[in-house]
Amino acid sequence: MKIVLLGSGNVATHLAKALKSKGEELVQVYSQNLTNAELLARLVGAEAVNNLNKIENNADLYIISVKDDAIATVAKSLKNVTGLVVHTSGTTDINILLEQVKKAGVFYPLQTFSKSKDVSFENIPLCIEAGDEDQLAVLKSLASKISSQVYELDGEKRKVLHLAAVFACNFPNHLYALANKILNQNGLDFEIIRPLIAETADKVMDNLPENVQTGPAVRGDENTLNTHLSMLNDMPELQNIYQTLSNSIKLMPK
Amino acid sequence: MKIVLLGSGNVATHLAKALKSKGEELVQVYSQNLTNAELLARLVGAEAVNNLNKIENNADLYIISVKDDAIATVAKSLKNVTGLVVHTSGTTDINILLEQVKKAGVFYPLQTFSKSKDVSFENIPLCIEAGDEDQLAVLKSLASKISSQVYELDGEKRKVLHLAAVFACNFPNHLYALANKILNQNGLDFEIIRPLIAETADKVMDNLPENVQTGPAVRGDENTLNTHLSMLNDMPELQNIYQTLSNSIKLMPK
Repeated sequence: MKIVLLGSGNVATHLAKALKSKGEELVQVYSQNLTNAELLARLVGAEAVNNLNKIENNADLYIISVKDDAIATVAKSLKNVTGLVVHTSGTTDINILLEQVKKAGVFYPLQTFSKSKDVSFENIPLCIEAGDEDQLAVLKSLASKISSQVYELDGEKRKVLHLAAVFACNFPNHLYALANKILNQNGLDFEIIRPLIAETADKVMDNLPENVQTGPAVRGDENTLNTHLSMLNDMPELQNIYQTLSNSIKLMPK
Repeated sequence: MKIVLLGSGNVATHLAKALKSKGEELVQVYSQNLTNAELLARLVGAEAVNNLNKIENNADLYIISVKDDAIATVAKSLKNVTGLVVHTSGTTDINILLEQVKKAGVFYPLQTFSKSKDVSFENIPLCIEAGDEDQLAVLKSLASKISSQVYELDGEKRKVLHLAAVFACNFPNHLYALANKILNQNGLDFEIIRPLIAETADKVMDNLPENVQTGPAVRGDENTLNTHLSMLNDMPELQNIYQTLSNSIKLMPK
């Protein structure tokens, strides 16, 4: 497959490397910023482009991996291509593309990417959607080359998945940050709590979280709950979070 | 060192195996339940005991690893021993022991243990405390044999650490459970979100969480926040948690 990549951010970079490593041909990398386009293009043996008018018309697949609110604009420049055009967004509807191009799809990797950290695509869930069965088959075949976890999801389910991801990723990370705040205020370093964070996540790789809940709330240990709440008297925002989440744990069916 | 272990639960089991593997001599394992005592005793080549009157008086170290509210009772039976008596609790004061025995300390591993899952002690932070410098040196030497992370912490700091652990372990696990609830209600499996959970924890192994926060709240993406809140209209408890944590993320200094 001849692939054109539009975007040079975290998702685009990780995706381009994964596709290249499986022998796919990346013909062009587009970015508004030529330096960024060149950096990534060189990495995957593609031509760097910073002008949407210079995008080739005869590629098989166009992957738009830009900020959500720029997807429509980029798609508009692909009106004349015959290949399949996909975006990589969790929240953007496929119709945003279908208003601009003939063949559209979604190729959404469910992961939190950082520039500085390599991540193996093999275990990243790829959620795909397409306008018809043939296009879906093309995406499924490509997705299966780079990941062992390919899911066909419509836009509604992809939205649900994105909401669940906020609970499973963004909120836990914030709670790590609050733990760090408590530690720092008492002269303790975040380092001390890292093994516990790693093990907590590792535990649910083979178990469902509701089956391995630990701590004072699930034990109904009111002494410890009250001690902790009073330790947070000077931090009412954290006290509120402690109370809210402890109550929610108590309400959880066992 | 001749060591007597009082308890046969998760912490006792993991600790006994780690000590044995480093060549320490476990002479007795006590449990109210003889079968449990025998199971663990056999594993580490110790004598199984289910009667506190049969505990040897001449061991070097007694490790009490039972439920918090049973520590005092077990300690009472060790009034006549000359060795050092420690407990493994995060929240129990050292004075609970000092009221009963001559030489007391704390040997608290900061980790979430499951029976079914092996865990390497090498990376588990061990928090120690003792009545005097000599006893502390003994505990430090022993702790250093099984873990590379040994911390001398007084009771106040140990309490703070336990509170931070609730934020870093118990609450994130509950949020995983809520994510699973959202997924299940929409016919999606927890499996799809496991790689994201693993990566979220892995990210903070080399970074501080406040520096790698992602998601709609930290981006100030009000469209997505409002969409998510309205998707939770039928789950007011989850809606409240979503609102509370999103507000807290927005308040976090960057």
